[in-house]
Amino acid sequence: MANLFGSALTLAVFGQSHAPAIGCTIEGLPAGYTVDEEQLQRFLDRRAPGNNPTATARKEADKPEILCGIANGVTCGAPLTAIIRNTNTRSHDYDELRRIPRPGHADYPAYVRYGGHNDIAGGGQFSGRLTAPICIAGGIAKQILEKLGIHVIAHAQRIACVDDTPLDPMAYRSEQEHAILSNALPCIDGRAATLMQENILAARSEGDSVGGIVECAAYGPVPAGIGEPMFGGIENRIAQMAFGIPAVKGVEFGAGFGSADLKGSENNDPYGMRDSRVTTLSNNAGGCAGGMTTGAPIVWRMAVKPTPSIARPQQSVDLSSGSNAELAVRGRHDPCIVPRAVPVSEAVCAFVLLDALLQDGAVPRVLGEA
Amino acid sequence: MANLFGSALTLAVFGQSHAPAIGCTIEGLPAGYTVDEEQLQRFLDRRAPGNNPTATARKEADKPEILCGIANGVTCGAPLTAIIRNTNTRSHDYDELRRIPRPGHADYPAYVRYGGHNDIAGGGQFSGRLTAPICIAGGIAKQILEKLGIHVIAHAQRIACVDDTPLDPMAYRSEQEHAILSNALPCIDGRAATLMQENILAARSEGDSVGGIVECAAYGPVPAGIGEPMFGGIENRIAQMAFGIPAVKGVEFGAGFGSADLKGSENNDPYGMRDSRVTTLSNNAGGCAGGMTTGAPIVWRMAVKPTPSIARPQQSVDLSSGSNAELAVRGRHDPCIVPRAVPVSEAVCAFVLLDALLQDGAVPRVLGEA
Amino acid sequence: MANLFGSALTLAVFGQSHAPAIGCTIEGLPAGYTVDEEQLQRFLDRRAPGNNPTATARKEADKPEILCGIANGVTCGAPLTAIIRNTNTRSHDYDELRRIPRPGHADYPAYVRYGGHNDIAGGGQFSGRLTAPICIAGGIAKQILEKLGIHVIAHAQRIACVDDTPLDPMAYRSEQEHAILSNALPCIDGRAATLMQENILAARSEGDSVGGIVECAAYGPVPAGIGEPMFGGIENRIAQMAFGIPAVKGVEFGAGFGSADLKGSENNDPYGMRDSRVTTLSNNAGGCAGGMTTGAPIVWRMAVKPTPSIARPQQSVDLSSGSNAELAVRGRHDPCIVPRAVPVSEAVCAFVLLDALLQDGAVPRVLGEA
Amino acid sequence: MANLFGSALTLAVFGQSHAPAIGCTIEGLPAGYTVDEEQLQRFLDRRAPGNNPTATARKEADKPEILCGIANGVTCGAPLTAIIRNTNTRSHDYDELRRIPRPGHADYPAYVRYGGHNDIAGGGQFSGRLTAPICIAGGIAKQILEKLGIHVIAHAQRIACVDDTPLDPMAYRSEQEHAILSNALPCIDGRAATLMQENILAARSEGDSVGGIVECAAYGPVPAGIGEPMFGGIENRIAQMAFGIPAVKGVEFGAGFGSADLKGSENNDPYGMRDSRVTTLSNNAGGCAGGMTTGAPIVWRMAVKPTPSIARPQQSVDLSSGSNAELAVRGRHDPCIVPRAVPVSEAVCAFVLLDALLQDGAVPRVLGEA
Repeated sequence: MANLFGSALTLAVFGQSHAPAIGCTIEGLPAGYTVDEEQLQRFLDRRAPGNNPTATARKEADKPEILCGIANGVTCGAPLTAIIRNTNTRSHDYDELRRIPRPGHADYPAYVRYGGHNDIAGGGQFSGRLTAPICIAGGIAKQILEKLGIHVIAHAQRIACVDDTPLDPMAYRSEQEHAILSNALPCIDGRAATLMQENILAARSEGDSVGGIVECAAYGPVPAGIGEPMFGGIENRIAQMAFGIPAVKGVEFGAGFGSADLKGSENNDPYGMRDSRVTTLSNNAGGCAGGMTTGAPIVWRMAVKPTPSIARPQQSVDLSSGSNAELAVRGRHDPCIVPRAVPVSEAVCAFVLLDALLQDGAVPRVLGEA
Repeated sequence: MANLFGSALTLAVFGQSHAPAIGCTIEGLPAGYTVDEEQLQRFLDRRAPGNNPTATARKEADKPEILCGIANGVTCGAPLTAIIRNTNTRSHDYDELRRIPRPGHADYPAYVRYGGHNDIAGGGQFSGRLTAPICIAGGIAKQILEKLGIHVIAHAQRIACVDDTPLDPMAYRSEQEHAILSNALPCIDGRAATLMQENILAARSEGDSVGGIVECAAYGPVPAGIGEPMFGGIENRIAQMAFGIPAVKGVEFGAGFGSADLKGSENNDPYGMRDSRVTTLSNNAGGCAGGMTTGAPIVWRMAVKPTPSIARPQQSVDLSSGSNAELAVRGRHDPCIVPRAVPVSEAVCAFVLLDALLQDGAVPRVLGEA
Repeated sequence: MANLFGSALTLAVFGQSHAPAIGCTIEGLPAGYTVDEEQLQRFLDRRAPGNNPTATARKEADKPEILCGIANGVTCGAPLTAIIRNTNTRSHDYDELRRIPRPGHADYPAYVRYGGHNDIAGGGQFSGRLTAPICIAGGIAKQILEKLGIHVIAHAQRIACVDDTPLDPMAYRSEQEHAILSNALPCIDGRAATLMQENILAARSEGDSVGGIVECAAYGPVPAGIGEPMFGGIENRIAQMAFGIPAVKGVEFGAGFGSADLKGSENNDPYGMRDSRVTTLSNNAGGCAGGMTTGAPIVWRMAVKPTPSIARPQQSVDLSSGSNAELAVRGRHDPCIVPRAVPVSEAVCAFVLLDALLQDGAVPRVLGEA
Repeated sequence: MANLFGSALTLAVFGQSHAPAIGCTIEGLPAGYTVDEEQLQRFLDRRAPGNNPTATARKEADKPEILCGIANGVTCGAPLTAIIRNTNTRSHDYDELRRIPRPGHADYPAYVRYGGHNDIAGGGQFSGRLTAPICIAGGIAKQILEKLGIHVIAHAQRIACVDDTPLDPMAYRSEQEHAILSNALPCIDGRAATLMQENILAARSEGDSVGGIVECAAYGPVPAGIGEPMFGGIENRIAQMAFGIPAVKGVEFGAGFGSADLKGSENNDPYGMRDSRVTTLSNNAGGCAGGMTTGAPIVWRMAVKPTPSIARPQQSVDLSSGSNAELAVRGRHDPCIVPRAVPVSEAVCAFVLLDALLQDGAVPRVLGEA
């Protein structure tokens, strides 16, 4: 069940990069909800390839078809399955890779695990393309959270050693979201976006790639006490899901690795009464304590490694002959996948949060009237 | 099932800091294995409180009693349950906390979640004491892995801004393990240990606390291709489990957050043939690609925040009156829990790895002959 | 996760009777297996409607399209998703049912559970049509088991108070399977089949329906010791899955309810050495003891209630007015679904058995050579 | 996770018949509930051995010790673990069984599965003694349901071919419960109890044993629409859990196997308005349709085979020599375990129902005020 995630709300992802289709099944959505398919499409378009000079040239419309889960225009309580047909596949690009595994990719472990039967075309089930179904599920979750007044937004916090302005850890600021959706790259600071883009293009021109950090936050009336102790906490869940995104190598919450260098008196978030409500006065915890929400915004970051597919020749081995070999990865690849990972982080955060809210009874099982 | 973790091998943790007992149930251990209880005790002693001037003054023998799962001296295929009686409890220290939640602790979210019925004494189920059962499970897993030649070791990579020498990312070095077990703090570099200890004691004298980073590695004949794609990868599982340790705020693998600043040509681990085996020539991936082991050592780090319990007065609220309040945490607390988190990280890593090896049939279900 | 089943091998079912499609995702199939799609189609045809005068007049080709999970003609380790488009839907038949729930159906509980948003057309997610995806998964499992020499067969043990000859509880007999596949109804005894058919048609002419019992067995080299104790036994799993088939109201193994009237000396299956192998000399246990296989054939039965959709007027209520109402179910329905449930029982049995064999390492994760 | 059961409420069972202890961990109980330990003890006493001339002579006090999960006298949201120490063990009785498996027991499959390392003493983890932890969990669930007005009761419907009066399928009748708790055996009809007891003692005098059927019902304000479709229905869950009770060979709901012989017009439960509520006018469905509750009482039965341990010589094999062997089971055994299975069926039914109610938000997560 490696492709399954969630508790009260579950997501099962399926597909390979060059199979007839990819998709997902979502179980546990509240009944009676009208999925806004146009809004979902706009969200998927933020992840889709081919929309940006810094991304892969592969064009996919990424139009999901909902096969079930809807009746009379609303969610009906049955699992919702949506698929995206793969159309723009050029599998011949990948023939050499059957023998010579790409450094930084899953090729070699998958070869061992599946006895060479794994689908190598386009990365098969290990392709970043499988984040599209995660965005379908997360995009719907995001819509439902928005009805509750909860905003989930993310940005490229850092690309190629260029930092963006951080998200406000205490409160949603609409101008931050607006900038992220408007700038050439999903950044709050337009100059940072420009500089990042220059660095990405420079890396591409050298046949190389760059990495970065995505920061994501969930703002709004997130109640305190949502989530579970021990292995079922909000942090555990976001981390488990986020490491399912190819290229993610680290996940942190609030002050994260930076908290290692703080003193307790600096790192602890004091409580105070604000408008008759218990509130944390800072948010080094990233909105989570003991696995549960504190009521403050959930703030987390994920480290995204540089795209492993690079044009430069790399040292590898020929599995058929058992000898060293040189490899130059052909095909169409992003010199930086951080911008496309931004909406995926929102999808992860929204999905985990809606799941926990449903599990704790904080969102009703039935929305609207029949 | 928030207190349950694992697939072929499962761990269910139970207990509260001041309840009659804490413990765990482990299901799926290979049958026929003789648990070395003395070795297990030595492992638990590394985590136990009261063994170090930098740790809490609370003394607990932490002697587990195995209630079942053993027959004729070996594991018998039935779940193994072990308990540790709580003896040295001083619950009266915690009375004030029912009203005034401690910043940085789970008190307030737990109060909301459980309607005020949560066990506040000693942190209840949210206490770091619950890592003892994790160490029982992980300690047994570590023993079984050692029989297979796999070593899992960890150290305090950083405390109070002092860095230790890193673990060798390519190969086990017995002198590193020896140093970790010998120095005053679990460090490779004795001078770093001394400096860390000074900083910890200085923080304590100021009524404050410090944080740090734990680095852990699994060395040895870890086969390639172990683990699962998407949400079931080695990284996903270690992260999910590690965030169950109180105070962990970040988890990273290999180059981790540092990989965000590398180029693809720097970060990719090239392959080469070594002794007729496919090998990665560097290990920025931390031994994991696509969720699966690459055959290189698994290397990961976790950020540990400074202990939230500090003697200094802190700002909080009085839940009974809904007004601001000042709090000074009494009781016995570690000014730095990083050293005690070191064996817990080994427990997490060993448990996840043995689980994945069992799931993939790389460790037999029956060990030894009847 | 109500629509998910399995451990090492999992099945996720999705779809509604009149949605664009139904289907399933199967995870954990051994890699390298060539699915025989023609053989799978023949298996699905045994369940499909419209093939028999005793079945519903609704015609569906039930041609699955495999969307992913295959590469180069073999299973590739990725989840296999297959869908069947729904074509022959006449949803207007169901308009009245939105108000007046059908006795014996899930209409009323579903109305309450989903706040009236449930898909009523064709029974929605509660339709017997959802057994088609179960047959896709079970049909593939059956093929893989056959490669291992394990035969899973079933028949209509009883319909409308007419008994068929029972399956041999000790050994596979090809003439029994041949008869089941040849007779007008899936029976061993052709005269029983004829009589059953007469009774079914008589019930239909009266606007009524009949029920029966399906018996299923798995023969061949089923190793002893497969399955798990307590809640994870072969019996627990078959029962859990079989009660997912609409209309199943009882499940029993071996002597089943009949064992209640036996003495221990009659019911116990003695052991003896046969060809140097430990063998049970009878099979009242139905091949299961303590949740594990004994090595004898797995023999079980499921009670199938009479089709609840009948033409006769029935007493119901009008949910919109809160008053009593009379209902006559229109639409196309089977006067007896027992024959169509026969292959579904095989699917259940094959799926559970392959799952347990994979979980216990008795079937390799990789089949064939790359 | 074979020893784990449940969704929102989970039960993990551990122990072996002759290990230091048996017990269970229950997670997901509502916080703030005061467990009535005396009432729980009375419930456990109904299952305990040694209370009846027809039961085993082994005496166990079956006094549970609650290790955690309680704070200030109420459930605190943490997992509740309770253990029962095994005291009256005579393991030498079982030495011969290491070589010669008992017909009708799990000895032989367990020997194969665990490579001979399984605990044979007292049946190890396969002992009926493991139903005591199930009764701890079910007993607490029963208490909570009673607060909601839901009664779960069961009786010996049939023993040694003697039938008891059936439970009323439409409404709770206190005189039925009173009779069950008062008669020598848990029967509604005292004469049936007397006759059953005579037959049990006659079987014992012949060195034999008898089986029977347990009928169980949950009455009261069970809302309609509780439970899930497909594999997560109330029937699926009760069946999965009930087959975890040693000796259970069949499970049926409502008319069960009898429904196979009915016509649709007879078997369907018509709806009618009663006191402005939608009600089924009969209950052949046993209170379940499409996996969900209909609002009618949940009525189900389980077939209990005759105790496999009998004094009469039986044919078996000697696993050490690979030859046929004769076996006479020594030790203390029940000639009929049906009476002791009666409270276990109540435990199963109460646990499943409370789990489903919690999952569906029909029981709050917090009971009482802090």
